[in-house]
Amino acid sequence: MQIKIAIDAMGGDHGPSVTITAALQFLERSADRTALLVGQPDVLRAELKHLKALHWLDEVDESGARLQIVHASEIVGMDEDIRSAIRNKKNSSMRIAIDLVKSGDAHACVSAGNTGALMGTAKFVLKTLPGIDRPAICAALPTRKGVTYALDLGANAESTPEHLLQFAIMGAMLASAVEGKTNPSVGLLNIGSEEIKGNQNVKRAGELLKASHLNFYGNVEGTDIYLGTTDVVVCDGFIGNVMLKTSEGIAKMMGDFLKEEYTKNIFRKMAALASYAVIKGFRKRVDTRRYNGATLLGLQGVVVKSHGSADAYAFGKALERAASEVEHGLLALITTEIERLHAEGLLTPQPPLVNDSQKSIVKHPPAHPAVPIEIEH
Amino acid sequence: MQIKIAIDAMGGDHGPSVTITAALQFLERSADRTALLVGQPDVLRAELKHLKALHWLDEVDESGARLQIVHASEIVGMDEDIRSAIRNKKNSSMRIAIDLVKSGDAHACVSAGNTGALMGTAKFVLKTLPGIDRPAICAALPTRKGVTYALDLGANAESTPEHLLQFAIMGAMLASAVEGKTNPSVGLLNIGSEEIKGNQNVKRAGELLKASHLNFYGNVEGTDIYLGTTDVVVCDGFIGNVMLKTSEGIAKMMGDFLKEEYTKNIFRKMAALASYAVIKGFRKRVDTRRYNGATLLGLQGVVVKSHGSADAYAFGKALERAASEVEHGLLALITTEIERLHAEGLLTPQPPLVNDSQKSIVKHPPAHPAVPIEIEH
Repeated sequence: MQIKIAIDAMGGDHGPSVTITAALQFLERSADRTALLVGQPDVLRAELKHLKALHWLDEVDESGARLQIVHASEIVGMDEDIRSAIRNKKNSSMRIAIDLVKSGDAHACVSAGNTGALMGTAKFVLKTLPGIDRPAICAALPTRKGVTYALDLGANAESTPEHLLQFAIMGAMLASAVEGKTNPSVGLLNIGSEEIKGNQNVKRAGELLKASHLNFYGNVEGTDIYLGTTDVVVCDGFIGNVMLKTSEGIAKMMGDFLKEEYTKNIFRKMAALASYAVIKGFRKRVDTRRYNGATLLGLQGVVVKSHGSADAYAFGKALERAASEVEHGLLALITTEIERLHAEGLLTPQPPLVNDSQKSIVKHPPAHPAVPIEIEH
Repeated sequence: MQIKIAIDAMGGDHGPSVTITAALQFLERSADRTALLVGQPDVLRAELKHLKALHWLDEVDESGARLQIVHASEIVGMDEDIRSAIRNKKNSSMRIAIDLVKSGDAHACVSAGNTGALMGTAKFVLKTLPGIDRPAICAALPTRKGVTYALDLGANAESTPEHLLQFAIMGAMLASAVEGKTNPSVGLLNIGSEEIKGNQNVKRAGELLKASHLNFYGNVEGTDIYLGTTDVVVCDGFIGNVMLKTSEGIAKMMGDFLKEEYTKNIFRKMAALASYAVIKGFRKRVDTRRYNGATLLGLQGVVVKSHGSADAYAFGKALERAASEVEHGLLALITTEIERLHAEGLLTPQPPLVNDSQKSIVKHPPAHPAVPIEIEH
């Protein structure tokens, strides 16, 4: 199967110089993928020419050209208002890339652009999978044992217990699809390890998770994330975002401390030379570029968000992630699992949250109107 | 003024071998403090004898003996149920130490014991200051610019906007008292920097903070904590606890990575020798022992919680923190500021949270019954 990835080539801090380089390396790694570069054609052609790679546009096989340019005249700014972007920039590289997934011309879309605009636009265009009420941002965090998939990392500011259950299902399917884990363990982020702790929302989510088919480990604390206690960690988007940003902040601070200690004086710099292998090894172990690429889970299409500041190597990791999710049939896995739980009465559709500041612009009706709707606050 | 600190000498992973060593060093550092060691007298005497320090019990000046033993026959276990501890272990070293603060025989209490039991017991015995509805755990986190005081780090699983305002006031007074900052800046932990993001609770808290007298910086993200963007960061206890535990987890992981890289083979170990100064400098900068000691803010008495695993150096830091809070009149500062805001109608007392899993065992009436009570959810 030829995997087609639509790339928002204009997005991110570096734009085409990063996205195109990464796309070419992505194509070189395997013949079974096609890259659709979405953006301003003259800019894209200029970059391809600079990279001496224009010939890729002519590399045609049974499935067509492996590298294609798709015209988009606008760009979404990094600080642009979400609603404004959705309403007014229908011809942005980000929007067109998502539209390609909607139309089936691409299996997945990858962007390094404005996160809020990407999420808002993707939700608006692609809509959620049947039985999923809210998409969630999910990323693979490096741990002592490998990776842990954490979600929601900021798609939603508040979530009901049922949303958390849905996140757990999606996260487990992602870990299963991409990491090949047969029965991924799921932890619920909480404070303290006894069930009686934590707030009402989390307690109720714990009950739902226990009743589900998931391999529910139970409550986990913040310390468990980097210990790799479970394959998946679930929390609401506010907590997830704080957790992620704090992790980045402290990791950066420690990295800066180490660098400062190494460069304080000439003797230290010499010690740095002697420790070259150590520093290189350490850097590799904490290299966030390897894990670049957060998935917007729960939409009718694979959407992966790259860090805005990603270099070509890191952006390439995001492309590989998107390809992997397509290849392993992630969306079908999620849909099947949701249907199973609905059939067993373990999942009920949720009404929109009251005063939800991120209301879907189009409200969609519950997936199974015959199932009684439980209102949880 | 002689500062009297009641020490739960039996608490923590190491008990008297740590607490007593730290207490003696504490007394040696300055003549203006007295240490009341609370615990099983024979155990405490045995440790003092081992340390060749029994003579301290006879060092008497105008204020009495600088080191005293206060009898407590029981110990609260590290995993003990909170309510059970409060009801049944009235003669624990933790309880007696808190009772000494209640009776005025000590200005402050320091314990390395079971956090939940310490908080529950302290709340039950000492009650909150007038105008404070919930105590909060506040700790100084090391940042690029020095320290940032973050609260609540886990005293409460949920908080109303008014609770967050009260936390902000207490945190600002703590930073002012201990760090000598004239007008400490306060940040509200949120996701994204625009006001429109975040959940309802946080949005409302932002409005209250803006209207207060505090030097309110505005929203801060997880990354801002370790950048030291503000002197104080406020969030609810669930988020604060996750944030703290995640920070500890990732810091430990990075430290382990560095150590593993340094000890992989003989060449690396030699590089480690060459980098001795670097490693030492780095360790010093990330040394959490320097910052040991979280304050249980908002009670009618100074209560400081040490890490259970603290060594004597770290426990000593907790003792110094307690002494500093007493010396700088922290409780009076908080009370004065609360009264000022009440008088200006900027603070209203809060009813107990519905389904609050950490209900006060004794409900106390609102501080100012004449002020209309606003019910916020």
